[in-house]
Amino acid sequence: MDPWTRDLAHRLAVARGERPADLVLRGGRVLSVFTGELLELDVAVAGEHVAGLGRYRGEREEDVSGLVLLPGFIDGHMHLESTKLRPDAFAAAVLPHGTTSAVLDPHEIANVFGARGIRALLAAADRLPFDLYAMVPSCVPASPFESSGATLSAEDVEALLRHEPRAIGLAEMMDVPAVVRGDRAALAKLAAAHRTTGGHVDGHAPGLAGPALNAYLAAGVRSDHECTTPEEALEKRRLGMWIMIREGSAARNLEALLPLVLEHGPANCLLCTDDREPDQLLEEGHLDDVLRRAVALGCPPADAVAMATLHPARYHRLHEHGAVAPGYLADVVAVPDLEGFRPVRVWKRGRLVASDGEVVGLPEVPLPDWMRGSVRVPPLSADDFLLAAEGSVRVIGVVPGQIVTGALVAEPTQRDGRAVADPARDLAKAAVVERHRGTGRIGLGFVAGFGLRRGALASTHAHDAHNLVVVGVDDADMAAAVNHLARLGGGQVAVLRGRVLADLPCPYGGLLSDEGPREVARRARELERAARALGVTLPAPFMAMSFLALSVVPELKLTDRGLVDVARSELVPLGAT
Amino acid sequence: MDPWTRDLAHRLAVARGERPADLVLRGGRVLSVFTGELLELDVAVAGEHVAGLGRYRGEREEDVSGLVLLPGFIDGHMHLESTKLRPDAFAAAVLPHGTTSAVLDPHEIANVFGARGIRALLAAADRLPFDLYAMVPSCVPASPFESSGATLSAEDVEALLRHEPRAIGLAEMMDVPAVVRGDRAALAKLAAAHRTTGGHVDGHAPGLAGPALNAYLAAGVRSDHECTTPEEALEKRRLGMWIMIREGSAARNLEALLPLVLEHGPANCLLCTDDREPDQLLEEGHLDDVLRRAVALGCPPADAVAMATLHPARYHRLHEHGAVAPGYLADVVAVPDLEGFRPVRVWKRGRLVASDGEVVGLPEVPLPDWMRGSVRVPPLSADDFLLAAEGSVRVIGVVPGQIVTGALVAEPTQRDGRAVADPARDLAKAAVVERHRGTGRIGLGFVAGFGLRRGALASTHAHDAHNLVVVGVDDADMAAAVNHLARLGGGQVAVLRGRVLADLPCPYGGLLSDEGPREVARRARELERAARALGVTLPAPFMAMSFLALSVVPELKLTDRGLVDVARSELVPLGAT
Repeated sequence: MDPWTRDLAHRLAVARGERPADLVLRGGRVLSVFTGELLELDVAVAGEHVAGLGRYRGEREEDVSGLVLLPGFIDGHMHLESTKLRPDAFAAAVLPHGTTSAVLDPHEIANVFGARGIRALLAAADRLPFDLYAMVPSCVPASPFESSGATLSAEDVEALLRHEPRAIGLAEMMDVPAVVRGDRAALAKLAAAHRTTGGHVDGHAPGLAGPALNAYLAAGVRSDHECTTPEEALEKRRLGMWIMIREGSAARNLEALLPLVLEHGPANCLLCTDDREPDQLLEEGHLDDVLRRAVALGCPPADAVAMATLHPARYHRLHEHGAVAPGYLADVVAVPDLEGFRPVRVWKRGRLVASDGEVVGLPEVPLPDWMRGSVRVPPLSADDFLLAAEGSVRVIGVVPGQIVTGALVAEPTQRDGRAVADPARDLAKAAVVERHRGTGRIGLGFVAGFGLRRGALASTHAHDAHNLVVVGVDDADMAAAVNHLARLGGGQVAVLRGRVLADLPCPYGGLLSDEGPREVARRARELERAARALGVTLPAPFMAMSFLALSVVPELKLTDRGLVDVARSELVPLGAT
Repeated sequence: MDPWTRDLAHRLAVARGERPADLVLRGGRVLSVFTGELLELDVAVAGEHVAGLGRYRGEREEDVSGLVLLPGFIDGHMHLESTKLRPDAFAAAVLPHGTTSAVLDPHEIANVFGARGIRALLAAADRLPFDLYAMVPSCVPASPFESSGATLSAEDVEALLRHEPRAIGLAEMMDVPAVVRGDRAALAKLAAAHRTTGGHVDGHAPGLAGPALNAYLAAGVRSDHECTTPEEALEKRRLGMWIMIREGSAARNLEALLPLVLEHGPANCLLCTDDREPDQLLEEGHLDDVLRRAVALGCPPADAVAMATLHPARYHRLHEHGAVAPGYLADVVAVPDLEGFRPVRVWKRGRLVASDGEVVGLPEVPLPDWMRGSVRVPPLSADDFLLAAEGSVRVIGVVPGQIVTGALVAEPTQRDGRAVADPARDLAKAAVVERHRGTGRIGLGFVAGFGLRRGALASTHAHDAHNLVVVGVDDADMAAAVNHLARLGGGQVAVLRGRVLADLPCPYGGLLSDEGPREVARRARELERAARALGVTLPAPFMAMSFLALSVVPELKLTDRGLVDVARSELVPLGAT
């Protein structure tokens, strides 16, 4: 008998009551996501599955009286790289919050390492009591103006979807115009998804409406996590889109979109986090935080839970996930009530993984060593940041809390025939250093809005190509910051007078730390403090920096090739005419 | 560019409004199954798909003002053989009623021909503007007491699921005890479904509850169409089962189960017909009839429609079915209102297939000739039906409208040392003649409850092995009826004094006619009349006959091997002790 069948035979014997369960959760109330009822039934677990709900005895029995048992939460759309955590550290961060599965878009690591980066993340998941799945990134690189470390062709997409069991669909089609126009490369990726998955394709369609929205849907895209108003979400839902209600660190849409759920019910809606920073994960939580907010905003608790469990499972065709019911995976979250959603215990595939907010017995799963040392930059000096500009220049205007930027014009201060940063006018220098191939190519420009008065900040988190972005008011500090990150193999740093004030090393691809969630969060907070000490007034300055190079989001961006006018989709000179 | 991509590129151009649609349905209101709203939008069709909803122009435009546009109806569980219609004739019968897709359990044809019978049905569907899918029969033969024409092993099941695109899962696991016990053969079929489909398995679980229900679900079974009370359905639904609300010819559960929908909403519920007779298809309709009844019973129309469209599509993982929305198949039903549900026009994959109750341009698709001539019985005479019994005998007691039978005991009338039928006491003879291999094996017994006073009735519709069943009060007429069906290659017949009063030839496997739906319905009605003329008082006598040999349903049944006591699961002698 093969292992699958042997496991099933055991499960049946347990369900019949003829053999003790491996584990019985006794005395709680089970929320049925199929009816919204609370059932006063014990949960019998056999192997990784629920065998039955009813009266059962077990080899082990846990008293969960007074608790409500929910299915493990499933994040239907998120980027691991935003947390800066390895898969094992991410699991450690969110399992105590009840999240037991996540569908990643490993877009960032793919821009650095391509398909093998995705495979490495998913392989790590094989050794964790946590289900990671991936939608395969659809837009690597994001634009021709960015120098990414790798590309993903339609052939790469198809190979991943065909051979990697955890790769379940095509990730957010961010290049909306290419889909709507029917560009050959976009069609080839859609065809690959069609052949391998029958067409499971995530969307990313802020503000899309009318004929373009119809075309986007006609291409087979079936979800969107970029709605910002209930009217937009309703137009999309009535046409068949699954509305992913996002509550991330920066982009928070729950309060705005909840009226859709209250008015039309929770069908075709699910909750996701998209991007959450490590300190937020620890302090506010993950999907438990989203559930708390939803219920506080008036959402019926059973609807909220369905949107964080059964609905993402159904949307993603994960047929054994999303319910505490016989034949489903034994992913169970025990909470005292349906308001606080503060997990007392969490089981993943039948195994206790978190208790009273602490993770239990999670293995350490390092990523492979070849993912280190990916930041290849020759040593830089202050001279590399000199700018010889006269007259007016283009200036990127950062907008607090937004990933769009303004395109400003200013007359920079001149010193020794050079255009220099001027803290008094909140004009800093920005540079993007190509870091995948060691070319030393640098794009230079000016940025306004950080409030930086001293030193420099640098990061290898720089969507989507993840080159090295640095913002500073002192050329020597900019060089020092870059050189420090090159030594670390990537991460984030704040530098003053050549001295590192704080850093967060991300040696894996320049994106992921090899520390645990607490240490990563601590370092992230120290970086934030250091930025404030340097005068920064902009909230979340490292996040703002991470979008300076994203040459597909308006208005003016900077890549290693120079300034990009996104609307015109072309490189533009520093000098403004 | 491959055809799929070329089609998609065309669809996108239409959706963008840059190219005229192949067809525009203008001026109607579209029911969104995702929100329940009626949308005043035109429907643009490109190829087989909806390209967009909005304002569009088309090469052809149809005025549907005043009409409501619904997705094509999907029967989530049915047996084609109950209709006695070939796939083309079935499509002709139900397309005017708005059904554009059906998921078959081709259990009957599989008992005659095995896997190649299933492949033949599905191949016919390739040439029709109608989507037929099959769940692969899980119990062929149904019991060791029946001599079927073929068997389906776990290997056969796996081969069909792996290589036949229209085979999408494992059909109703009727042998509930085998699943619950974890019998090796049942586990092997479940494993085959797991390997090929990730586990898509229909159930059949009348009255199942408690630990046995848990075990059945733990095995991965996810639907049931045998609920008869809302309490039963609620217990199953809360544990994750999809409740298929069946409204067939004999078994009608809609009225009883609708309270579940009214109280807990339509989620996890869908409508199906299971078994509908050909005359009922024409006179009452198909899923349109079920929708009418549901709304008349108080079901919100949008919920009823969702249960006949989006829900069966989602349950069966038919991701392009079940909605009128961009990217979905252009299966559209235009009705004047959401009470009568009387389709004015029906489009299948963008093509007009029915108008004002008449099918339009449907091709004739005969089944292959090797499916004929499957009834192999040597010529019989009256002597073959002689019964030499003394004293009390077991008698099958038919129950009007039920497939269960009673086990009675009677002292038969004796003549010339033989036990004979006695119309005055409503005691008829019954025989089941092995007909697949020409063995001439006959099981003989008595049956009460038909009210037959003259002649004989015979049929090769005899669940599940589909041997030849004959009921008569005259041995010579019984022989004549058998011999007539042998000549026809199967079907149904009524005989009096050696003369055929009425018949319905079913040359394909003894199960399917080669006539159109009207002719089949006419012959069915004539057979019914002929049965009345012979004195029959039992409603639907041929249906009752078709269950006389079903040796898995209590209480006393007759197969070609003799009488079967179903509870004891053994052959028993005619004489009652």
